[in-house]
Amino acid sequence: MFSERLERLIPYVPGEQPRDRRYVKLNTNENPYPPSPKVREVLREYSCERFRLYPDPLCGELRRVAARRYSIEPSNVFAGNGSDEVLSFAFFAFFERAMAHANPSYSFYPVYCNFYGIRNVAVPLDDELRISLRALSEAGSVDGVVIANPNSPTGSYIERNDIVAFLSRYPDDRVVILDEAYIGFGGESCVALIRRFPNLLVVQTFSKSSSLAGLRLGLAYGDSKLIGALFRTKDAFNSYPVDDLAQRIGVAAMEDREYEQAICRRIVSTRERTARRLAGVGWTVVPSRANFLFARHPRVAGGEVYRILRERGILVRHFAGCRLSDYVRITIGTDEEMDRFLKEAGREEFC
Amino acid sequence: MFSERLERLIPYVPGEQPRDRRYVKLNTNENPYPPSPKVREVLREYSCERFRLYPDPLCGELRRVAARRYSIEPSNVFAGNGSDEVLSFAFFAFFERAMAHANPSYSFYPVYCNFYGIRNVAVPLDDELRISLRALSEAGSVDGVVIANPNSPTGSYIERNDIVAFLSRYPDDRVVILDEAYIGFGGESCVALIRRFPNLLVVQTFSKSSSLAGLRLGLAYGDSKLIGALFRTKDAFNSYPVDDLAQRIGVAAMEDREYEQAICRRIVSTRERTARRLAGVGWTVVPSRANFLFARHPRVAGGEVYRILRERGILVRHFAGCRLSDYVRITIGTDEEMDRFLKEAGREEFC
Repeated sequence: MFSERLERLIPYVPGEQPRDRRYVKLNTNENPYPPSPKVREVLREYSCERFRLYPDPLCGELRRVAARRYSIEPSNVFAGNGSDEVLSFAFFAFFERAMAHANPSYSFYPVYCNFYGIRNVAVPLDDELRISLRALSEAGSVDGVVIANPNSPTGSYIERNDIVAFLSRYPDDRVVILDEAYIGFGGESCVALIRRFPNLLVVQTFSKSSSLAGLRLGLAYGDSKLIGALFRTKDAFNSYPVDDLAQRIGVAAMEDREYEQAICRRIVSTRERTARRLAGVGWTVVPSRANFLFARHPRVAGGEVYRILRERGILVRHFAGCRLSDYVRITIGTDEEMDRFLKEAGREEFC
Repeated sequence: MFSERLERLIPYVPGEQPRDRRYVKLNTNENPYPPSPKVREVLREYSCERFRLYPDPLCGELRRVAARRYSIEPSNVFAGNGSDEVLSFAFFAFFERAMAHANPSYSFYPVYCNFYGIRNVAVPLDDELRISLRALSEAGSVDGVVIANPNSPTGSYIERNDIVAFLSRYPDDRVVILDEAYIGFGGESCVALIRRFPNLLVVQTFSKSSSLAGLRLGLAYGDSKLIGALFRTKDAFNSYPVDDLAQRIGVAAMEDREYEQAICRRIVSTRERTARRLAGVGWTVVPSRANFLFARHPRVAGGEVYRILRERGILVRHFAGCRLSDYVRITIGTDEEMDRFLKEAGREEFC
């Protein structure tokens, strides 16, 4: 009854989403602060009669607001049901035989490849756990590349100048996807570069900086030819992936940039304090520009750290079977949540 | 820069969605009545803080409520971002080399085939514009079949006994998808048959009977093995396609079945009145169990009828290039909207 491609699938495994709220949940990089108060206003003012009609399949208003943020055109913007869907459409549209990504990076990349029958070339991080742009550019015969910047699970960040240098050398008939899911936490977005590099697609999400993981909304920015290809793909899969209310909430969140920047600044400040204190009790901490830290206990293996913390009511993420399985990824929560984490992380018996 | 599969795509073309509200919009089978008042309550009571967390990837509560309606288990229910996405996942999971569908039927079916590289066998309707189950079962070497019941654009309905007879003869290692998008308008659902036929998947939507086209929510019912295959597919494409608020709205709408049945009864009554009056002014009207009529003017071709009505502020849907291009599909609106349509449809100069 099942297709061979179904049997071949290796599904993505998201972090645990326990329904009970006992845990300090530092495992899926959610924002500890609520979304903009403007979101509440959208719900209050929304006329439910609108639900009877299909939503705008072009997400016109949302794309106009997103384009304004970066002084580009709406034809340079695509909106989808979370950046996961946007990435999936991009893999369909731009990659065929093979593509390259860093390893480890976002673990959905090889899953998309598997879904569409694309060979994935997994390029190891360098000795400092950073993405090697040189190694990615030497990945051989591929149709393009995806780069998470900052990278997950490490949090490492590539400076914009280095991205420009990479794009200048990269073949201009191959698409470069920059996954900027975590760009709001101290990095500098490369969206403006789409004018200079028509093969550059920048993907962003409302899940992290905008604190709207529950809403499922993602964007892509690129040359209108790339954006047209994403629309063409969407229209062969699901014509209306973004619901009417989500479009309006996205507009409200995007217009309240001050709020978004304020909560991101708080998270960055908590991250820096947490990194210093973790290092102070002997952990190895990878420098991060994201809303999480990738860190290793001086003596205890990652899987064990995950297990002990879980017993103590704190959920972090452990990536088993990868080269970096000595590490855990710790989402930055509120200061209070991180104090609770730090208290456990620094305990004598942990060592 | 683009994949060959992108170049090959023939995207689905949805009906027009003009943003201005001047038109009497009878072209995309939307419900003319607002959704249940319980939907308003969900928005009023929703805590926006919830948006910061990822939604339940299993849609647990929604699937429990849906299962209760049909006295089956939650493991027999899948939820997706509109029935379009549910169907897309089903095509991926169950069809590989070839599948069969009636023609004309929902025009997204061949689009999914094109997207996944499945050959589609298009089986003509019979002389009464009904789906021929016999012809579908003789469609040769296919992995399965999809049947829209009632069918679109015709509105024709297959009695449950005939579906049972078809399923009893059909090879039990091939999946039969019943697309019940329009089942709420006088048909009898076949969901209960999933216990008897483990190769039956029934797909439904909140867009029509529940008046929630703007929300993007669809369900599939089937044996837990089929449902498991849909989850496996989703987890290789987009882990969280249904947002948190949509899940709650779906629960509220599903629990207010009385309201849904009341608006559907009104639509059925308007449909029957409209069909009689259209026939009275000479149109040929296909018997319909859906929220639309497929009808032909006695002298004027479908494309021309569409154009004239559009000029007069009424949008209906015309399917060019198909065998039935003499017809137009007219969504059933309110009584007032249908009176306006009937006034134009019966005018002397139209003939």
